[in-house]
Order: sequence, then structure tokens, then C-alpha cells
Amino acid sequence: MNTSLLSVSFLLIIFLGTVSARSRGFSQEDQAQCQLQRLNAQEPSFRIQAEAGESEIWDWKDDQFRCAGVVAARHTINPRGLFLPSYSNAPLLMYILKGNGMSGVLMPGCPETFQSSQESQDDEKSTRFHDQHQKIRRFRQGDVIAIGAGWTHWCYNDGNEDVVAIVVEDTGNNLNQLDQNPRKFFLAGNPQQGFQGGAEQHHQAHQKGEKQNAGNVFHGIEEEFLVQIFGIDRETARKLRGEDDKRGHIVRVEQGFQVISPPSRKEQERRSENGLEETLCSTKLIENINYPSRADIFNPQAGRFNTLTSYDLPILKSLKLSAERGVLYRNALVSPHYKLNAHSILYCTRGDAKIQISDQSGSCVFDEVVREGQMVVVPQNFVIVKEAGEQGFEWVAFRTNDVAMQGTLAGRTSALRGLPADVVAASYRVSREQAMRLKTNREQTLIFESRSGSPRVAAA
Amino acid sequence: MNTSLLSVSFLLIIFLGTVSARSRGFSQEDQAQCQLQRLNAQEPSFRIQAEAGESEIWDWKDDQFRCAGVVAARHTINPRGLFLPSYSNAPLLMYILKGNGMSGVLMPGCPETFQSSQESQDDEKSTRFHDQHQKIRRFRQGDVIAIGAGWTHWCYNDGNEDVVAIVVEDTGNNLNQLDQNPRKFFLAGNPQQGFQGGAEQHHQAHQKGEKQNAGNVFHGIEEEFLVQIFGIDRETARKLRGEDDKRGHIVRVEQGFQVISPPSRKEQERRSENGLEETLCSTKLIENINYPSRADIFNPQAGRFNTLTSYDLPILKSLKLSAERGVLYRNALVSPHYKLNAHSILYCTRGDAKIQISDQSGSCVFDEVVREGQMVVVPQNFVIVKEAGEQGFEWVAFRTNDVAMQGTLAGRTSALRGLPADVVAASYRVSREQAMRLKTNREQTLIFESRSGSPRVAAA
Amino acid sequence: MNTSLLSVSFLLIIFLGTVSARSRGFSQEDQAQCQLQRLNAQEPSFRIQAEAGESEIWDWKDDQFRCAGVVAARHTINPRGLFLPSYSNAPLLMYILKGNGMSGVLMPGCPETFQSSQESQDDEKSTRFHDQHQKIRRFRQGDVIAIGAGWTHWCYNDGNEDVVAIVVEDTGNNLNQLDQNPRKFFLAGNPQQGFQGGAEQHHQAHQKGEKQNAGNVFHGIEEEFLVQIFGIDRETARKLRGEDDKRGHIVRVEQGFQVISPPSRKEQERRSENGLEETLCSTKLIENINYPSRADIFNPQAGRFNTLTSYDLPILKSLKLSAERGVLYRNALVSPHYKLNAHSILYCTRGDAKIQISDQSGSCVFDEVVREGQMVVVPQNFVIVKEAGEQGFEWVAFRTNDVAMQGTLAGRTSALRGLPADVVAASYRVSREQAMRLKTNREQTLIFESRSGSPRVAAA
Repeated sequence: MNTSLLSVSFLLIIFLGTVSARSRGFSQEDQAQCQLQRLNAQEPSFRIQAEAGESEIWDWKDDQFRCAGVVAARHTINPRGLFLPSYSNAPLLMYILKGNGMSGVLMPGCPETFQSSQESQDDEKSTRFHDQHQKIRRFRQGDVIAIGAGWTHWCYNDGNEDVVAIVVEDTGNNLNQLDQNPRKFFLAGNPQQGFQGGAEQHHQAHQKGEKQNAGNVFHGIEEEFLVQIFGIDRETARKLRGEDDKRGHIVRVEQGFQVISPPSRKEQERRSENGLEETLCSTKLIENINYPSRADIFNPQAGRFNTLTSYDLPILKSLKLSAERGVLYRNALVSPHYKLNAHSILYCTRGDAKIQISDQSGSCVFDEVVREGQMVVVPQNFVIVKEAGEQGFEWVAFRTNDVAMQGTLAGRTSALRGLPADVVAASYRVSREQAMRLKTNREQTLIFESRSGSPRVAAA
Repeated sequence: MNTSLLSVSFLLIIFLGTVSARSRGFSQEDQAQCQLQRLNAQEPSFRIQAEAGESEIWDWKDDQFRCAGVVAARHTINPRGLFLPSYSNAPLLMYILKGNGMSGVLMPGCPETFQSSQESQDDEKSTRFHDQHQKIRRFRQGDVIAIGAGWTHWCYNDGNEDVVAIVVEDTGNNLNQLDQNPRKFFLAGNPQQGFQGGAEQHHQAHQKGEKQNAGNVFHGIEEEFLVQIFGIDRETARKLRGEDDKRGHIVRVEQGFQVISPPSRKEQERRSENGLEETLCSTKLIENINYPSRADIFNPQAGRFNTLTSYDLPILKSLKLSAERGVLYRNALVSPHYKLNAHSILYCTRGDAKIQISDQSGSCVFDEVVREGQMVVVPQNFVIVKEAGEQGFEWVAFRTNDVAMQGTLAGRTSALRGLPADVVAASYRVSREQAMRLKTNREQTLIFESRSGSPRVAAA
Repeated sequence: MNTSLLSVSFLLIIFLGTVSARSRGFSQEDQAQCQLQRLNAQEPSFRIQAEAGESEIWDWKDDQFRCAGVVAARHTINPRGLFLPSYSNAPLLMYILKGNGMSGVLMPGCPETFQSSQESQDDEKSTRFHDQHQKIRRFRQGDVIAIGAGWTHWCYNDGNEDVVAIVVEDTGNNLNQLDQNPRKFFLAGNPQQGFQGGAEQHHQAHQKGEKQNAGNVFHGIEEEFLVQIFGIDRETARKLRGEDDKRGHIVRVEQGFQVISPPSRKEQERRSENGLEETLCSTKLIENINYPSRADIFNPQAGRFNTLTSYDLPILKSLKLSAERGVLYRNALVSPHYKLNAHSILYCTRGDAKIQISDQSGSCVFDEVVREGQMVVVPQNFVIVKEAGEQGFEWVAFRTNDVAMQGTLAGRTSALRGLPADVVAASYRVSREQAMRLKTNREQTLIFESRSGSPRVAAA
């Protein structure tokens, strides 16, 4: 599709329908703290170990994350590991960096449409077992999973390698009516404190490397109450409350899940194409952004961009989030550009790139080589430029709007091209001919190959 | 209507249309203050006495109210008492706890469609009197009245008993563009300071029990100006400014209102059913949530819920507020549940209940018996569980979203039921059979009767 | 059009569609600072001089502007002056106080639909020059120009007198996801620091009258990078970065723009009437609010109001801004009124008026004669009343909502008229006959002529 036309459609949505689900919300005090005069590539600050995996969390009190109103984490789930059911106070996107598995997202009010049954051999006698539950979705490398605020979800790794997922929670989103601290409510287990952002002391505890246990939501209800409500014995109530559970938030399922058998990925996609996903309860929550064949911008000499907006995955419209997957070849460049209506949280998945970010006063607030595993927060309107290293550069970026509009400053769709040559000439004190060259030198859109003969390439 | 289906419809709205009218808006400083580690049942903190009634106001600077962005009050209007015309900086819901009367809500731009006329005997000669004014609505016990930000409204008690109303103003709502302080603008009288939340000192004055007078909005315009604008004499201008008016914000109308005669309730409802309420100016603002026959959830052994959302009363869509009325029988239980997209402000109207609230770290942040006249703020996502006392428990709850979505943790629509038994078993370290019992033990939706034979009931 | 009906339509929009794009966002700390107990008419605090014009900026850290979440400026562009291309972190409205010229607003993704060509005489040989660029719009006195957050725009004065423009940026708007500081991103030149609100020290520097230079966004990208990206030589890269450019943000174009020739105003309007403006890229961004013949409220003895809402200029729906132009004749009055859903930022364009503003406690928080060139911020819900001086009073007001609803307290559409006479009588302790007079004395809507025989006029 023609990029200009595509962008026009994007614009249409913005103007005709979408209201930002975010507000500044920053007080005078915060403003002094949001100067963002020095951004930097960050690695996770805290690590929370569990029986069958671990979570690494970026410091959400750091200026960059706090000002963007996001919390980021990297979860590693070992084979046969189950990330316990939980819900968050903010909508989130999860990118599957590695591995594959299955996930359940429970939307309140949705029916139990999946059935499992099995001839089981428990207790040395054969019994027929039946179960009903909500839809299970399979995920694999390159998938983005969208999860709303307050939706209970769980993940299980039924593969043979670790599942690694990058998660960005948008705590600054309007869907979160409380403060900007991350709040993860577990329905089971006895997860460690790291997920609880409510209190400064917890935050400090993490920084000191201390570990505290924190219970699941049933832990806040007394045993006797649970006995009454669920009609269970005290022993089970104690288990519900997660007492003495040392497994952490990712637990090992020794025999694996024997009963559950979600439809295969292909089957799921076939059903989807058949138009069977008709109700909200079966709405699509997962989309892969790793297919080169589905790239939105492609330059065979330089790389590609896949974007995932609410056009592709309509649920994003209510979550006000979107994502982008980028692949740059060796030494390729990305035109200077900015997001008009969103912050961008960029995670490098492979390779490295030299990145510079300019703020409103023309200060270079970021000038680093970003490497695999590092994260960069690009504030709304700040101008970013990238040049891939010798190994190329790959990343996934999360944006705080469901259709993130982009302004570019070089190339075929750039602002310079939209300016009359006379304005360019007067603005930059160049001749009209030089102005035309500034406008037209780069014919590509957003991604440029390294120029042969240019000093940098020569040096390479 | 099937509850699952109902919830699905709710979900649809949330995803397909509704944008939250609220944002976190909390700064770093506030976050430290929003830890909400200890909630408690509250009674009003200030009392403002007037000629024909009084208002009791909850302390909106208290953490619970401040973090939820709401201000709550209980107004008592004596027979023949008129609550003077005023408007607020925030949308509000009013629940009529007791009594009945009439109310005028003036929407700017709406026509004067009501006519009053009377043969009057003023000055000992008979004169014919004609008046035109905006629509008047009757209200009675169990009604919820919805009033937008900036809409002038008045209430008059033409019954024989006190009118008692619980009001929650949503100052954290996006419709309020200034700060979160309550601001009530009176059009007449000389109301006491308690309604003015703009200044810290007033707040302190209340806490010390001091009383200060504050004028109506005309008091801020000089007499001479008013003479000019209204074409009146100085004496009337002084009355407009409320000078020397000691009656307070609820005044006694000695002879009552002789002229006004709104259509009876039945007449109003008949007109409404005939589809005559076609324009916004005649949109429905009042709905009763006390009819057992209109319950949304009903369990003959345990109690009932009536909810009032923007589906029932479309004006709520713009106000981003909704309400719920609950009745629990003796010892009945409400399943642990949380609101996905709203805070809940619960006021006990009768009886008592043991209530526990769990936060994201599994801490019990509330564990009290809540009694008639007390208010509890339940933050978004926090899990609440209730058990009615010997006399049962009745309440009204106000929510900061027009369709408040709910997640339950036990019973027929619960998250546990949506989880595969294998996931439940692994999460809680129980056998698959115990998992099935956890999922299915409670067949009811949200409200459970007390279990016979259980320890608690046995002790009762 | 009947005013009541008009207002009803306004209401309909508010209720049926529009969600406020703003939230309070004020913390406890701010609340203490938002008491607004003393407003005052303000003149600009900083002046930023440039080669071909200057900008004067109101102090956005002042309580009035900070609490309303807006930043205001007055730009003067000399003949042949070009305001360099820039974009802001907030949507803005610009009112052309004087002069005329042309403006380009670049929306990302929109095509270059304008062509320029010329036989040029450069280098003493005739060459044919072709250029393509985005749409150019002409503007003239009385125009309001609407510009979205992040849209690059430039202005050029091709007339013979200075262009003077009043600009209000809505930094509190949801479209701005960062803090409330103004951030202006220039694409060229080396503009002075005054536009950069990110840092407290800059603000202080202004207050001390110091001048600091700040670069355009390319200044934050290193020269070598620019050489690569644009395929240009180092000299041009240095020009792109604005090095040694002393011209400031408004530069002189010595020979003027020879190539650019936008269609004439009449031609533009003819095209518009023909329904040719079909896509977003050609959406109308400019509307004149100075035509007496298009007044929304008109009183031949007192004056007129022209309003510009999202009904008139649909793009305002996404910007959540609107404007009003008012003209009062000698000694004419404006009824006490308030905006239900917006702040108002009023700029006096001619004459003077006595203005009083009342807050929620009936305190007169503003009581001044406002003169040409001064600005007043009227917070949401605060009641304002105006009386023009001997020379009359003219103003333009900017509002922080796309359809600002208004409540009036005197005249034909007033709240008093909507109240039953009995309620008025009881509220103000007057007889029913006096109540009728209060309701009906003023037959006009909003604008009243000075009453002959009244003391004030007699004294005049």
C-alpha cells in the first residue's frame, strides 16, 4: 500500500474518532523532574527469581519510565513453567522474544467455551475427566499479545526452550484510575514483592536487592471467609491463600498439562479467516509482527518495519497501545523522525545501533550505541535517528497510542518535502537548488541504505 | 437475562465505544500518598447546619477519597425545605435515602417548557399569576438523580418527612478541568463555607468546627453592576447578593410552593413510556434502583443487586458514573470481586456486614464491620468480600465509570471457572479433583447464601 | 438561529459524543497552588527578538496560566518575515490580529499537492524551476488558524504591514502526553531559548531578561549523521543544524518568495463551497470570526458575539479547542455567565472594559479595567461580568473545549428564567412579583445595552 495513503488513513482516524486515553497528569513538582535532559539505554534493575523462571524489571521510578508512564519487564519462563494467573492495573502489550506456549486471557463475563476431557490414570484407576474453561490461545516467537487492565491472564510454556517475553504496561493510561504505580494482582501463589509497586519501601527494597514475599489476593481474605465462600476445607483455603508456597510467581508443572489441548495455530487462523471470531469474547488478542512478508515499509537494501495498530488488531483501540517491529541491515539508517501522539519504548532484540535523540532545544539528549537487551524511552515529539552497526539492528517498540502518527524529517514523506523550496532555502540559508536537493536527495521512505562512497561507509 | 450475556454486552461497550473520562493525574508526590495501606469505614467529618436542614460532608482530603477523586455528602432537607439553586465543578449522583420531593435541573439552553398559573390572593385582591420555567422532576426514596458538571439544580421537600440524600461528586472526572477540590457555586443565599473546597484554610476551619459564611456567586459582583444588569433597585440587588441572609443553604418556604405542580410520578412515567422524551432537554435524569422486581442479580436465599448504568440511563454515558443497589439477607455472602475500570464508593443504608478488602500484595487493607451511615471507598482492582450480619446488609454504591466491569473470584462467573482445571491445580497445589471443586462448588452468581452446617453459621 | 435551539444542539454534542480531552491532573501540591484567589489582567512577560519580528510570551508558570494548562504568546512578523517551520507539543489556536500572509501546515502523510514553477534568472541564465509541496493557506486579519500537536507549520508575511498573531497553546490537552511545559521544536534556524519551556533555568533566565540560543532539532544530531542521511556535504549539514545562524526564529526573506503563489482567498473559498475539500489533508484549518454578518448573538444597541466551534471547523473536534470573538459597544454589558466545560483565555483587542469575576465562594477574584493587549484567564465555572468603557470593548477568547457550553445568569436564556418564580422568591427573599421581574427584566440574550437613566450611565 502506498505509504502516503496509509498515513492519510492514519490521520483520518486520529481526527475523526480517536481520543487520547492519556493526559499529562504532571504537577509542577513533576515538571521539574521531567526535563529529560539525559536519556540513556537501560537494562533491567530488579530480578525476581521463581521456581520455573524469572522476571527482570526496569526501574519504573527512573525519569524516563516515570515521565512516559510505563513499566517494563522481561519474563523468562522455563519449559513446563506456568506464569500464575494475575491481572494488572494497566493495559499491557507482551512481545514474545523467544519460545512458544499457550496463554489464557479471562475476560469477565465471557463463557467457558473450551472443553477438555481425558481418560486419566490417577490413583491407579481409570476415570473420565471433563473440564470447561475460557478460550486458550497459542503464542510463538514474534507474537504481540494485548491484555486489558484488570484482565486475568496466565502463560504456560509447553515447548522445549525458554519463553522470553518483553512486557510494557501503560500505567499512565486513563484505564488506570489510581496512581501510576504498577499493581499486579496475583490470583494464586505467593509471588515476590517485586511486582508490587504501591509502596516506596518495596521499591527501595528492590534496589537494595532485598526480597520480600507478597501474597496473592486471597491472602488478604481470612481463611474462615474463604472456607465459607468456596465451601472448602481449611487446608484448601490455606492453599488458596498461597501459604508456605515458596515457588514464586512462575511455577513448575511437573507432569505438564495433560488435559489442555488448544487448537493448533493453523486451526486458529483458519477459524479466524472463516469469520468465526464474532463476539468480543473471542476477539483476536495476538498478532505476529515478525513476518517479513507483512512489512509495512520495506527497502531491500536497508530493512523493514512491521507495525501493529488498532487497524490490525481492533482491541488495541480500547487499550490505546500499538507496537512496531524493525529490522535494519548492516549500516542502514532510519530517517530522523518523531511520534506526534505517543511515547515509544524501544527494546533491542538483536545487533546494535548508534542512536541519537534530539529534544526541543536541539540538545542531543541521547547518544549511545544500543545493544541487545537494552531499552530506550523516546518521549513524544523528540527526534530520533538510528544507524545500524555491522551486525544490523533489530528491535520491537511499544507506543502509548493505538495509532502512533509519525513525522519524518528526511526522505520521501518528510516535512522538508512538504515545504516549498523557497521556504527551505530561506530557512537554511541555502540556494534554491540546494533546497531542492535537501528535499529530494533521499527517495526512500524512513529506511535508508548506507551510501556507498560516503565517509562513514568508507571507514567501515 | 443471562448474566454471562449481560456481562458480554457490558464488555462490548467498553471496548467499542467508551473512553474513560478519568486519568490518573497523580504525581510522584501523590503516589507516595496513595499507598492505601489502611482503608476504613468513615462517617461524615463536617456538618453544615441551615434553616431547614443540614449537610454532612465526608473529609475529601482523606486518602481514600482523595485517591478516588470523589467528594461525598449526606443532605437532610426538612419538610418545606428548599436546597438553594447551585452548580458543581463535577458531575454527581444523588441517591434518595428517604422522603420525596421535587427537583429542577437547569440545562443551559433548554427552554422553559413548564407553565404554572394560579388565582392568587396577594394584597387582598385576586390576581391571575402566570409563570414559565424549566422542567421539574419528582423524586422519591430509592431514586438516583444524575446531574452534570455546571448544571444548576435545586431540591424541594414537599413531603411530610425529611428528605435524606447521599451525594457523590466525581471531582476526578475529566469534565472538571481544574483541580480536584470540590467547588459548589450557589446562585442564591449565603451558604456556609463548608461547600467551598478551594482553600486549605476552609478545610482546616471545618476540622476545627468553625463556621464561616460564604456568599453566592452574585456576591462577587458589585451591587451597582447588578442594578445595571438586572434593571433592579439596590434593595433587590442586595438580596440577590444574599446580604444578611442567615438561612444557610437550605431555606424554609413558609407557605410552601403554591404555584408549582409538576406532573405526578405516574404521569411522568406514562409520558416517558409513550416516547415523548425525545430531546436532550427532557432526557431522563432520575431512575429508581430500589425495585426488587428489576434486580439484575437475584438469589432468593441470599439477596439481590440492582445496577444503574448508561444502558439504563443514557445520560450517565457523558457523566461517566454509575450506581448499584445491593440487598443481602442474613449472613449472606458476596463473592470476592473487583471492579476492572472504576472505583466504588459504598454507603451502608441498613444493617451491617463484615467486609474485607485485599490489595495487590495480598494485604488485608480493610477488615471492619460496616454499619448504617458509614461509607467505604473501594479502589479500582482491589478485591472485596462481604458477609451480611444478623440483620442483613443493604447499601448503595457509586462507581466512577458509566459501565463498571466486574471480575468475580468465586461462583458461576468467576475467574477460577474460566481457568482450566490443570491451571487451577498447578496454581494452588491441589489435585485435579480439588481444582474442579474450587471451580464448581458455588453455582450461584456473586451472591451466596450462608451455608448450613458451616462453622460460622453453626456458631451463629 | 434561535439561541435556545442553538444551545440545545450544543448540549446534544456534549452528551452524545464529545469526551473532554483534558483532565485535572493536579496533585495535592498543585491544589494548594490553584486557589486562584486573585486573578489579574496580564501582559506578556518575555520578549524574544528576531531578525524580522518578535515574540512576546506570557508567563506560563503564573498560577492563572498553569492552572488552566495553557501557554500564550503574541507574535509580530514584519513584512517579508518568515516564522521558521516548527511544531509544538500541544494543539494551538492562532488569531490574526493584524496583517495578512500565507501559512503552511504539514500533516504527516499528506501528499505534496501544490506545484510552483517559474522562469528564473539565477546565474544570469534562464532556467525553468519546478517545485512540489503541501498545501499553502492564505490568512488575514480576523482569522483563526487551528494547528494540531506535532504538526509542522510556518508563516510568511507577504503583505506591507506587520502580521500580529495571538497564540494559545493547550499544553494541558490530552494530546500532549508529557508534562505541561511548552515545547516548541524548530526544524530550522537557531531560535532563542524562550520557546523552550522544558527547564526551570530557562524560565528563570527569561525572567532575568537573559537570552540564550537554542538550536533546531537537527542541532541534536551530529553533522556526520546528517551528511549520511541527507546525502549532503558538510557545509550544508552545518546549515541544517543552524550553526552560526543569528537570525532568530523569524527570518527576513530579502527577495520575498518568488515562486510560491497560493490560490487567492476567493478562489479557496469557491473551491471550498464546491465541496472540493474532501480529504483530511485538505481539511479547513482557517476560519474568520470577524464578520459582523456571521454573528451568533447580535444586539444592535449593544454588540455581537461570533463563536467558532467544532461545528464550524470540524478539525477543532480533535483539538478540543474553540474560540469566540466579541464586540461590545460603548457602555454595553455582558450578562454574568460561566463556561460549564472549559477555561476561557480572553485577550482584549481594542478598547477597555470593567470586568469582575466571582469564584465559588462569592469572592470577587478579579476586578479590573482590562485594556488592549491584556490577557485574562477565566477558570471553568467562574462567573464573569463585563461592562464596556467609553470606547467600547473588543476581544478574542480561546476555550479549552471544542464546544464550550455556557450558563448565563441574567437575560432571556438565564438560569433565573429556568427557575420557577416561587423558587426565585424563596431563594432571594423577594415577593413573587419581584421574582417575576428578576426573571424577565432583561429580554436580551447575553449582551445588554446600557440602560438610560440608570446611575452609571447618568454619570457617564
